[in-house]
Parts: sequence; C-alpha cells; structure tokens
Amino acid sequence: MAGRLYGVGLGPGDPELLTVKAARLIGACPVVAYFAKAGRRGHAREIADRYIPAAAIELPLYYPMTTELPFDHPEYLSVLSRFYAVSTAALAAHLDAGRDVALIAEGDPLFYGSFMHLYVRLRERFACEIVPGVTGMAGCSAAAGAPMTWGDDVLTVLPGTLPFAALVEKLRASDAAVVMKLGGNFAKVRLAFEEAGLLERALYVERGTMAGELVSPLKDKAEGPAPYFSLILLPGQGRRP
Amino acid sequence: MAGRLYGVGLGPGDPELLTVKAARLIGACPVVAYFAKAGRRGHAREIADRYIPAAAIELPLYYPMTTELPFDHPEYLSVLSRFYAVSTAALAAHLDAGRDVALIAEGDPLFYGSFMHLYVRLRERFACEIVPGVTGMAGCSAAAGAPMTWGDDVLTVLPGTLPFAALVEKLRASDAAVVMKLGGNFAKVRLAFEEAGLLERALYVERGTMAGELVSPLKDKAEGPAPYFSLILLPGQGRRP
Repeated sequence: MAGRLYGVGLGPGDPELLTVKAARLIGACPVVAYFAKAGRRGHAREIADRYIPAAAIELPLYYPMTTELPFDHPEYLSVLSRFYAVSTAALAAHLDAGRDVALIAEGDPLFYGSFMHLYVRLRERFACEIVPGVTGMAGCSAAAGAPMTWGDDVLTVLPGTLPFAALVEKLRASDAAVVMKLGGNFAKVRLAFEEAGLLERALYVERGTMAGELVSPLKDKAEGPAPYFSLILLPGQGRRP
Repeated sequence: MAGRLYGVGLGPGDPELLTVKAARLIGACPVVAYFAKAGRRGHAREIADRYIPAAAIELPLYYPMTTELPFDHPEYLSVLSRFYAVSTAALAAHLDAGRDVALIAEGDPLFYGSFMHLYVRLRERFACEIVPGVTGMAGCSAAAGAPMTWGDDVLTVLPGTLPFAALVEKLRASDAAVVMKLGGNFAKVRLAFEEAGLLERALYVERGTMAGELVSPLKDKAEGPAPYFSLILLPGQGRRP
C-alpha cells in the first residue's frame, strides 16, 4: 500500500507557531522532506527542528542555483522544471515504498509555496493531505500588533515583483495590502507606496516572530535590499464601532 | 502588577489547527474570554474546548442582538460600541487584578475579527501579545486541495458585503480571490462571479477543516444563504515551471 503525502505548513518562523497537527505529523511520518538552498540547512528544516525525530529519513530538496537568470527566462523555467521532476521522483519513491512523507513548507503550503509544484505533480497518483499553516503575513501583523482588516476592508496581497505602475494602481485600489517578495524589489515597492500616497500608513516587518524581529514605519526603513523574511503591511482603516 | 492580554488565534475550526503556542497559552492563562452569540456556547469556545483547563475563569462576551439592523445604521454602531466598552471593562478588571487573559478568536485575531475592537481599546493600558492563527481562508484552501497563489499572482480578499458592481470589478482585476462573509450575500456574490466570467473556476467551501466539511464547484452550489463558516475561493493560475 502506497504512502500518503502530507503538505505541512510550518507557519511564519517561530517554532511554537506550528499547528498541533503539523507537530504531530512531522513526528509521525517516517520521511520528512524540505526545500533548501544548496549547501544550506534551509529555513523550513530550521523551523521544524524540534519536531523531527532522530530516526526520521530526511529528504532535502536543494534548489538549483539560478540567481543569475530572470524568473521568466526560458532557461530558468527549464532548470526549475527539471528540479521539480527530480524532486517529484524522489518523493514518489518513498510513497511507492509505502512510506508516508511530510513535505514541510514555511507559512501555508498553498500560498506562494514551492510545495504546490510537487503537489500538483503527485496528487493524481497518491493520497495527499494539506495541513494549513499560519502565513508570514499573519505572523508579521501579529509582530507589528497591527490589525489588518476591519468591516468591509478589501485586502490585496501583492508580490513585490510586479511592475511599478501595477503596484501603484493596486495599492491605490486597496483598503489594506501586504507586499511580499521584497528582496531586490524593495526600493521600487517603497517608491510605489510613496507614489500612491500611502507611505505614512505602511509598516515594514523583518523576521516577524523570529529572533532578530524588526518592525518599523516603512518611511524610516532605509533603501537597499530587504531580506527573504520581510514584508510590508498596509493596515486597513475600515468600520470601527 | 497588571496582567497581560493575549489575542489568541484559534485557526479555521479543527481543534488540531491551533498553534502549539495558542494551546500552551490557553492552558496557562487564568482567564479565557471569548465572543459568543447570546444563548450559545460560541464557535471559539467550541474550537478551544480541549485546551481550556477546568479551573480557568471563563468570560463569555455575548454579542447584542442586532440582526434586524443594517451594518451602517447609527443605532447598530452605537449598540456595538456600548458592547465593546462593557467587554473592555470586563477584561480590564481581570487585567487590573493581575490576571493574564487569553481572548480567543477564530482564525487569525487581526484579520476581520471582533478581537481587534477590544485590542485597540486596551493596548495603551496593558501589555498585549498577539498569537497569529491559521485563517479560515487557508483552512478552506487546504480542505479543497486548491493551491491559491503561484508566482506573481495577486490575491484579493473581498467581503461579500460589498456592492455587486464593486465585487465584479475587483474579481476581474484579481488573479486569485477569496470572498468571505457570504451569508445572505451569497446569491449576489455568485452572480458577480458569473458576471466576471469566473464562475467555472471558483470553489465553494463550507465548514472547511470541520465536521460537515463540504467542497463544491461554485457553479454547483444552489442559491440561498450560505452558513457562517463558508467562503468562495478563486485559485490563481500563475507561473508554474
């Protein structure tokens, strides 16, 4: 009998912000798989550390080095596609051998995650179950103590990779917003907030819920790249009796 | 020394989808407070049941009966405002007496929650900490096995209370969307998906992660009101190597 694939959300970074179910499944699955940068232990592995039994079979999936290629370059897509195929085969081998696999993923597995690329390749062949997680967005609003949406507020989640004009337009049309994937896009995103007249209301959060957590008004955050674990919050201002 | 207020997210409904931290704090705080409909035990109390010690002081906060008044009616706002003032005083009494209070909240406390109304009234006077939770949105996408956002997808979270034309416009402008607060707005929201040409792609999820969970293509869901624990998902279709 084939094993079962669990897509397990790890939450925003604090190991106590895993769900009870995630902790139980990580402790119970014979195989724990995770994405990591080549040569690194990986953020996911780090967050889940205390829940992974010593006897677990660990299956790290190392991203290919592609930083020099833009996201929409055909070569980048083909390298990634090969990587997902190889990773899928590695997971399938364990599942075929009857071993349950917990593929652990930062945040929520179905919200901008690499997990989804393996999930859609495996779900026709194996039983799958998703364990939702606390998003980085929720972790960062908690860290900032910033209520995000009130009453009829519309919230928009924007990747910082969008073009400047699209960012400005979408920020203007939102009551509340979150901008993810900052990295090298930080200066452009900050300027988009300024252009939309929203710089004063926005918050910058770095490493929310983790060691080194930093919360700052966006206007006070110096330009320059933002680290992987960072995002910008625009809290809503809707109906408050 | 005054007590500390914890805003504790309970997740989407399955009691195993509380975070490890939420479970720990609910077990450790001498006072556990929660919103409920008058005469009911309340969803939050139900979800947290197994984590609340027998010795805890329970503080139910019963919503005033206002269903006959529209949300923007001045009388509704004034009734709610009095309710929040009375609830704030009840929590402050425990905090002033040095007792930590866990105010438990479905989903994430800072995402469309009643918690926020007490939080903004108490945070200047008492130490507060937010424990983020898994949103109903993440719970429902997990229940549906539906990846929500890929690559550069923009996600919009819309309350079903918005006017029809606004819903259509915002759905058309989104790569992925979630519509909350369906209830009596269901027929209008369904029609907005149809008008936006998105009916075929949308999913309806009821009681996601709970007993009685139901996932269905939106087009197959008969009209009529949708229960409290329901929402509509429009999964994104972004970049997939």
